[in-house]
Amino acid sequence: MTRPAHQSVTIVDVAEAAGVSKSTAGRALAGAAEVSARTRDNVVRVAAELGYRPNQVARSMITGTTETVGVVIPEMSNRFFSAALQSIARTIRKHDYELLVSSTEGEPALERRSVEVLSTKRVDGLIVAPVGGADADHLRRLTEIGTALVLLDRPAPKATSASLVSVNNIEASRLAVDHLIGLGHRHIGIISEARPDSAPAGATELEPTAHWPSTLRLAGYMRAMTDAGLTVRPGHIAHSAYSSAASYAAATRLLRATPPVTAIYCTDNVLSAGAFAALQDSGRDCPGEVSLIGFDDHEWAPLVRPRLTVVAQPTEVIGITAAEELLAAIADPTRQPATHLLPARLITRDSTAPPGRAAAGG
Amino acid sequence: MTRPAHQSVTIVDVAEAAGVSKSTAGRALAGAAEVSARTRDNVVRVAAELGYRPNQVARSMITGTTETVGVVIPEMSNRFFSAALQSIARTIRKHDYELLVSSTEGEPALERRSVEVLSTKRVDGLIVAPVGGADADHLRRLTEIGTALVLLDRPAPKATSASLVSVNNIEASRLAVDHLIGLGHRHIGIISEARPDSAPAGATELEPTAHWPSTLRLAGYMRAMTDAGLTVRPGHIAHSAYSSAASYAAATRLLRATPPVTAIYCTDNVLSAGAFAALQDSGRDCPGEVSLIGFDDHEWAPLVRPRLTVVAQPTEVIGITAAEELLAAIADPTRQPATHLLPARLITRDSTAPPGRAAAGG
Repeated sequence: MTRPAHQSVTIVDVAEAAGVSKSTAGRALAGAAEVSARTRDNVVRVAAELGYRPNQVARSMITGTTETVGVVIPEMSNRFFSAALQSIARTIRKHDYELLVSSTEGEPALERRSVEVLSTKRVDGLIVAPVGGADADHLRRLTEIGTALVLLDRPAPKATSASLVSVNNIEASRLAVDHLIGLGHRHIGIISEARPDSAPAGATELEPTAHWPSTLRLAGYMRAMTDAGLTVRPGHIAHSAYSSAASYAAATRLLRATPPVTAIYCTDNVLSAGAFAALQDSGRDCPGEVSLIGFDDHEWAPLVRPRLTVVAQPTEVIGITAAEELLAAIADPTRQPATHLLPARLITRDSTAPPGRAAAGG
Repeated sequence: MTRPAHQSVTIVDVAEAAGVSKSTAGRALAGAAEVSARTRDNVVRVAAELGYRPNQVARSMITGTTETVGVVIPEMSNRFFSAALQSIARTIRKHDYELLVSSTEGEPALERRSVEVLSTKRVDGLIVAPVGGADADHLRRLTEIGTALVLLDRPAPKATSASLVSVNNIEASRLAVDHLIGLGHRHIGIISEARPDSAPAGATELEPTAHWPSTLRLAGYMRAMTDAGLTVRPGHIAHSAYSSAASYAAATRLLRATPPVTAIYCTDNVLSAGAFAALQDSGRDCPGEVSLIGFDDHEWAPLVRPRLTVVAQPTEVIGITAAEELLAAIADPTRQPATHLLPARLITRDSTAPPGRAAAGG
């Protein structure tokens, strides 16, 4: 298979017209110090006259940098990740970097492959939201060979020299649960991807760099309940797989719990949609009988009735911070890894209110 | 600034261990025909023993291909584009291609820069959803220098050798408007990014490869109305900028139109959200007084009450088709450009019903 040349004027043409060797022309255009200013100016002028368009692949061979960063995320159509990606793209563009994106569909094997492929394309650094579950040796190796690495949203315990940028998940949960407790709720259900035993009693020892967001969010719920002197009931913790349908089922279980819950806290944007639909379909009045608080400020949160109260992640700031941390690590390979835990904020709308009629039976 | 080497074993190490020149080792690993099978096998074995990881940049220099395609879209966090991107990523990955993504934020200058940068990185082809408005010379040039180009969702009239993949916008509008007409509506408003004069009376001559989706959707509305013997009233065509807030204002204007509208058709997913909110806030019963039909099947369409009837684009198929068209064009540079107009489908929910009380006054 042959392809037409991607450009009509090559570095060879420039070199000939400028009367220098191909390698000198290449170095001159890359601004290398060993080329005299006079030669460089001449080559640059000739290149401009000929309409030469620098070939990035060739330039990478000369400069050893690519002006490209890679981003590996589980799913491009997930609202949190697509918004973070947009924010990362804006930030790195300001620094004349481009973005190479790969999605892993939540599959550890695809993540290993994505990291490997991006790494062989010689990106200057990577932002990865790890799939987890499997080993993270591929991420540790990446930092060992000197590739700058920033973890987005999720930790990778083995990649100790990577930075981490995420919301402060424990505090985000406390915001949500304290809001409900402040309204007078005592029987608060939670829908969580984490299993109850993943956030043990010693929840105070949980480290954001070692635990999954869902585990930290569950731990935050437990802490807020315990600190308020409320009982954490296993029957009020509904485990849900990461899908709207699973969350629908989990919310339906919670609505039948004994003692009855007067409020439900959903710990993720995908889970919030399923729980909202389940509450609508149950015929229970929200917030009259059951309050609902979601995670992430989705487009639909102010469109539904009642408008949804949520704990919002600072998605844009998370993207900016991850991008800036990565660019700093690229610029200074000796930079120490940092952990940025950004504050969530509560957006109070109409789906949360003091417990009403149903509470009397609780 | 020095960076540690991205890999410890280089092609030079492989060449030395295999007792061949560096260029022979490179050609052998690239599977070039001019290297004997015996040499190739030897080099491949040595490379495997040393744990050599091929350097994609170097390989691009040898093979002239990059196994990378670029995608340029206006906004990564727009639901349509993020879903299409996910679908493109899945499809090209099956063919061992990677994705280089750039977003243009709807700015012609950023689009030119994105295309230029991706092109100098030697992607094998590009999928672009053009911003439009400005000239499309950069896209025409791209195809002239032999880069495979597929246009996504939107045309670029000057890039005549590019393929186009989009929904059939005229037919999509007809689906929506015919649904409303079939329910008995006669006074149907439309919220459109296109200005009324952009879809002239001779709408039958509109070419999908020459007109913007919003223009085609407005033309489809006009055709459906005219074909049913209904009057197209300028006061029932509400122009809106591309934002939820602008659409909120446009819907509010439509709800005050004379004669009153009994149904509103929103021609885009961003516009649908604003119109839905405006209708909720107006206190008018939907669908009792005013029916509403949206565009694109957003996550929130089944969550709101009434659940939203929509015209859905086959987003996943659009992504797959664009990716396959591009891969085919990369494989065969002589391939003729094709136009794929994919059918939309109507998803009937609760926000559309026969005209009720308000219709009596119309």
